[in-house]
Amino acid sequence: MKRIYSVLVENRSGVLAKVAGLFARRCFNIDSLAVGETFDRDVSCITIVSSGDKGTLEQIEKQLNKKIDVIKIKTFSEAESLSRELLLVKVKYNKHNRRDLFEICNILGTRIVDTSKSLMTIQMCDTPEQTESLLQMLAAASISVVEVARTGTLALQKCIMSEK
Amino acid sequence: MKRIYSVLVENRSGVLAKVAGLFARRCFNIDSLAVGETFDRDVSCITIVSSGDKGTLEQIEKQLNKKIDVIKIKTFSEAESLSRELLLVKVKYNKHNRRDLFEICNILGTRIVDTSKSLMTIQMCDTPEQTESLLQMLAAASISVVEVARTGTLALQKCIMSEK
Repeated sequence: MKRIYSVLVENRSGVLAKVAGLFARRCFNIDSLAVGETFDRDVSCITIVSSGDKGTLEQIEKQLNKKIDVIKIKTFSEAESLSRELLLVKVKYNKHNRRDLFEICNILGTRIVDTSKSLMTIQMCDTPEQTESLLQMLAAASISVVEVARTGTLALQKCIMSEK
Repeated sequence: MKRIYSVLVENRSGVLAKVAGLFARRCFNIDSLAVGETFDRDVSCITIVSSGDKGTLEQIEKQLNKKIDVIKIKTFSEAESLSRELLLVKVKYNKHNRRDLFEICNILGTRIVDTSKSLMTIQMCDTPEQTESLLQMLAAASISVVEVARTGTLALQKCIMSEK
């Protein structure tokens, strides 16, 4: 069972360490984590995807709520949320695999954001499943991946749910 | 002075807490942090943007290198790297501000990824400066922002630098 926690915290040094420490000490699993500023510079938003049984997931929420730097927590299931992640992949290309590479990029709606003689950086912003597809399609086409950087999952509650 | 650290670590519970704890204990500033899996499931990549004087930034690298879970660190300046961040913004719209909103979205090359009767979620994947522009343009157009979720900066060395 997966659960997404969107945790608003005070934007101060040490807060991320406290939140990550809570998960580590209690052996709660972090599938992914993304942290960034919100509209208010004094507030950061940490998006954590965690998996476990119902009891564990409720426990996580309770423990997070106890932290004084935590302003507000929203949790939602995968079905209630719009999830996106960002992936940057640097690949090697040559005149033999270039066509395959372009096709894969077009099929998945990615953007080529940087190139040199033999290297290319592809940017993809989609659901975690789709970004995983890109990596699998590159592997299947024997295109050599030099470097990968990937954010954790970012999520907001679906608009239709927020209307209620 | 800003510096980007791309830190490859073992993908195990507690590693992020250790890295975040190192920054907190030594009062090193974290401007942003993004963590995600790499091509190899046993390895995660943590991208950290930090600012400080030259001595502090060197100290951060040394301290990170001492951690046993750290496999490899790459550091680069903003000029050497391709930086991207992902932003999801949920805004309120109505028939009066809808045209302004569409114009802003088109100018900045964003995508509308979810809508309901009065809410809209905009996805933007660009440099940190450009994502900041979106928030400023929305504020200038008096479009009310309901929620923001943002990843930290993700960065890869520019292709032309990697060729060397």
